[in-house]
Amino acid sequence: MLLSSPHQASFVSTLLLFFSACSIAINTNRTISIGYILYPGFELLDVYGPLELLSSASYLHNMTLSLISFTTGPVASRPPGHLMDPSMPPVDTSHMIGPTTVATHTFENAPPLDIIMVPGGMGNVALEQENNTVMETFIARRFDHASYVLSVCTGTVTLARAGVLSGRRATTNKWAWSWVTDPAHGKNITWVPSARWVEDGKVWTSSGVAAGLDMMYAFLKHLFGAEELDSLLNQIEYAPHVDPHWDPFSVVHNVPGADRNRSLADCVVPAGH
Amino acid sequence: MLLSSPHQASFVSTLLLFFSACSIAINTNRTISIGYILYPGFELLDVYGPLELLSSASYLHNMTLSLISFTTGPVASRPPGHLMDPSMPPVDTSHMIGPTTVATHTFENAPPLDIIMVPGGMGNVALEQENNTVMETFIARRFDHASYVLSVCTGTVTLARAGVLSGRRATTNKWAWSWVTDPAHGKNITWVPSARWVEDGKVWTSSGVAAGLDMMYAFLKHLFGAEELDSLLNQIEYAPHVDPHWDPFSVVHNVPGADRNRSLADCVVPAGH
Repeated sequence: MLLSSPHQASFVSTLLLFFSACSIAINTNRTISIGYILYPGFELLDVYGPLELLSSASYLHNMTLSLISFTTGPVASRPPGHLMDPSMPPVDTSHMIGPTTVATHTFENAPPLDIIMVPGGMGNVALEQENNTVMETFIARRFDHASYVLSVCTGTVTLARAGVLSGRRATTNKWAWSWVTDPAHGKNITWVPSARWVEDGKVWTSSGVAAGLDMMYAFLKHLFGAEELDSLLNQIEYAPHVDPHWDPFSVVHNVPGADRNRSLADCVVPAGH
Repeated sequence: MLLSSPHQASFVSTLLLFFSACSIAINTNRTISIGYILYPGFELLDVYGPLELLSSASYLHNMTLSLISFTTGPVASRPPGHLMDPSMPPVDTSHMIGPTTVATHTFENAPPLDIIMVPGGMGNVALEQENNTVMETFIARRFDHASYVLSVCTGTVTLARAGVLSGRRATTNKWAWSWVTDPAHGKNITWVPSARWVEDGKVWTSSGVAAGLDMMYAFLKHLFGAEELDSLLNQIEYAPHVDPHWDPFSVVHNVPGADRNRSLADCVVPAGH
């Protein structure tokens, strides 16, 4: 009965028109192999903000997604409890809620990757304290073969420790700035204190968590152009920050060298408007 | 070696101070039971945008999270391929990428819930076309016992079909407006054409996808107050839209009755600034 509703027909027609208008792209684009790294205590939005845009764009452009972790199967987003400096009282995070995401591949059996995505999260502090360098070894080994490597938030620390930021410009979460930019994590890196995201050749790094959405919007425009992407952004009702220099959080968190002369405000508008 | 780094110590101290300042709340708050509904073809950000805020807030306030679906185990976010009106050519979505999220409970064995979250997504179109009313029956049965019921994007259609929006004000995704607001989905509903989100007693409904983040920020402020939440928002570097009447997408998508006199811009700033 509802199937014959003119309202639904109108909604469905709109969907179909949008899809049909772009359907050529499905057959003309080669398949892009995307690998998203997961680890216990990854930050949810670091993964699912960019994935919202990538999965929607995958209607128009053939992509494969490999969710890569230490083992296949469920990976918890709840932060490990032992992420604090041992010289301080441990923080109990065992009561925190956190869904699990299913990893499809391991660092050993991941397929060739065109794009590697690295999220941040409390878990990478724990991994460093355990002297776990599996992710860093994976990134160092795969870097030259990838077309792009992107990190969100403190995922930048993994790129730094892997050595792939040497000689490059990068940014990260401004709340965790002093930890990530510790020279012990990587030498010869030009840290950009006020940036929503930084593009340096094949390496893109974003500021904290939510900034991953803005970086991914800019990245997909770089790959595929604006028009189809703006339609998508308006369907998911996200008004992106399009100025890579907009970074009020670098001021909020007193990052050394932050641009304090800019307004903290950003007048975001719908994409394409 | 890195453990003794003054930079990391400083980062860790900041974390610890933030956590310690709020630690009292952990023992004084009762546990809040949250149920997040999942179905094949749920929209990623409809679930993980609000969950980013909820999971972070769960450090400060005891919560449990039940991910509820038709069966326990992995639930695919990839849209079902048969979501189109049968009178039109089917759209093949089988090539789209979509991670899976692990459901912890079914509609039959879900625990008592204080807060019920309902995401949108292409999957609910498919469920309606299959005359599947399991989610609607669940919501109708649990509604009176819940303190709050929130829907994101087209999740509103599930609330409408469950009958719980009768006599209430609500909004939804503006791109899917004509389909969701079809009178066949529910009678005696006051649809608000220009709204980022709408609060009507225990029922909160948001506009499309990304609007769920703004609704959840407003909802958590309603529950817990602003100060701790603003610290959190600045750590995840999300500048929320705080005006429930800001809705440029109602203009972009030509929603009947949309407020065309307002600027499409919103000068977002860091929370608390």
